[in-house]
Amino acid sequence: MSADTPEPVSAEPVSAEPVSAEQQAREAELTARVLASFDGTADPRLRQLMQAAVRHLHAFLREVRLSEDEWQQGIEFLTAAGHITDERRQEFILLSDTLGASMQTIAINNEAYADATEATVFGPFFVDDAPLVELGGDIAGGANGQPCWVEGTVVDTGGKPVPGARIEVWEADQDGFYDLQYDDDRTAGRAHLFSAEDGSFRFWAITPTPYPIPHDGPVGRMLAATGRSPMRASHLHFMVSAEGLRTLVTHIFVRGDERLDSDSVFGVKESLVKDFHEQTPGTPTPDGRDLGDAGWARVRFDIVLAPDQV
Amino acid sequence: MSADTPEPVSAEPVSAEPVSAEQQAREAELTARVLASFDGTADPRLRQLMQAAVRHLHAFLREVRLSEDEWQQGIEFLTAAGHITDERRQEFILLSDTLGASMQTIAINNEAYADATEATVFGPFFVDDAPLVELGGDIAGGANGQPCWVEGTVVDTGGKPVPGARIEVWEADQDGFYDLQYDDDRTAGRAHLFSAEDGSFRFWAITPTPYPIPHDGPVGRMLAATGRSPMRASHLHFMVSAEGLRTLVTHIFVRGDERLDSDSVFGVKESLVKDFHEQTPGTPTPDGRDLGDAGWARVRFDIVLAPDQV
Repeated sequence: MSADTPEPVSAEPVSAEPVSAEQQAREAELTARVLASFDGTADPRLRQLMQAAVRHLHAFLREVRLSEDEWQQGIEFLTAAGHITDERRQEFILLSDTLGASMQTIAINNEAYADATEATVFGPFFVDDAPLVELGGDIAGGANGQPCWVEGTVVDTGGKPVPGARIEVWEADQDGFYDLQYDDDRTAGRAHLFSAEDGSFRFWAITPTPYPIPHDGPVGRMLAATGRSPMRASHLHFMVSAEGLRTLVTHIFVRGDERLDSDSVFGVKESLVKDFHEQTPGTPTPDGRDLGDAGWARVRFDIVLAPDQV
Repeated sequence: MSADTPEPVSAEPVSAEPVSAEQQAREAELTARVLASFDGTADPRLRQLMQAAVRHLHAFLREVRLSEDEWQQGIEFLTAAGHITDERRQEFILLSDTLGASMQTIAINNEAYADATEATVFGPFFVDDAPLVELGGDIAGGANGQPCWVEGTVVDTGGKPVPGARIEVWEADQDGFYDLQYDDDRTAGRAHLFSAEDGSFRFWAITPTPYPIPHDGPVGRMLAATGRSPMRASHLHFMVSAEGLRTLVTHIFVRGDERLDSDSVFGVKESLVKDFHEQTPGTPTPDGRDLGDAGWARVRFDIVLAPDQV
């Protein structure tokens, strides 16, 4: 990983020699000393986390025989990630996402439960105070893109409708930008709404299109140096919460998108790939909205929430 | 790890349940997918580093069953570390140091070779352009502290004197601050000099005293939350380089310092602990310098450099 250029680091490991028994003992002794320094941690969970982090970190260093130059490049990479991070840009989340750490954390915390809808990555573009829209309202807020009608229901794993579920929705515009990436403070492509008494919901959004994660920073340089694409498969973000049920953070993806197999943050799951039905211009809309001569699309997403505490 | 407070995270693991075979398979499949995404990396060393990093990172996440709150705290910790880091403060080096990662990297890259002097951590306080002093000169540059005469020789592992070795020396003042931590741009407690024709060197410095690493940031909060001290054992930094020989980055420590066993960055090695001989006021100095009624100390440090490329 290089902070400043995508140039590869040396291909040569520090030493091709096997590590001597004495050297192995020295290295193991150091790891043991560091682990012991955390023995006095009052909180047992924090002790577990710190000691496991040290154990895996040292195992990594010893396995790859990290050179001092590579260590320095690692420090510079983290520094650059810290410096590009601000209220609108979160490079550490991008790093976690592109290393699959976010998706692995999601997997660990959302174990399969009956037919509950699968979770996927949260991403760095959610904001807390997105506007409220009524059922059938438009979350686009002026974001460019093809209008898309989204509808579905929220039920629990017993099939019972969930009224009043809070549904947060957010997405990039057709140029691949979230409102947070605009030069001004406009809110676009995000809103929240509540499911109806029968658990149903519906709203207008825009049809998702593929876009790159922000790749003008150290994470982008890492992707370039490793021959990986920064592109995400097209998707629409959801976060759905209701009393007594497990909060669901997920996306829906567009069937047929060629990037489903190379999503830069490993977020795609087959169960979340949906049919976005293209409608020719002039096709009547579900709510009578007049779209003039614009084409539009429609998609259905039925959401099943697991119980809380599973 | 908490970015904002030293409050411990929950003591409860995410799940006390054993992980089901299906869940294990899902998690392993995700790790395999992330590893495969790096298969196209052109540089084999970079591929090795990235795949090993992913493997160990995912193993950590799965072992501790990291919660989403804990993941968020990790992101906030890294963000805070990035934001406190500037040209004078390097929180990521402090993090690496306090997790023993710096010392492990040093150990890996400085395998034992004959009687070569042992290396230790570099630390975040070196600067490239420290002033030159003549042999016998004073590196204190006005830093407060007890004068300390430092002398020794630089030889190779065959015992041959090394003339013209570049010796960089840096240290904190008696209040525990490096010049980089001063409010102004003064240079103090750092210099470089060159060994004489017979490999000998000598200079005035100040007697090292214990001091805390900067602990008003996220790393300090981590140390507080884990019951660890931020104090470093008293030491004087050296970096010694000469043509054809392995550059040595090390410290000398003060025998009798009670913090030798709890150094916050795990830098102490027995071979680097030296006798600092206290001299009563009025004891003649080696170079005739008049210290008035001040006491002073003297220490000898004989340096052995390994060949380059071992």
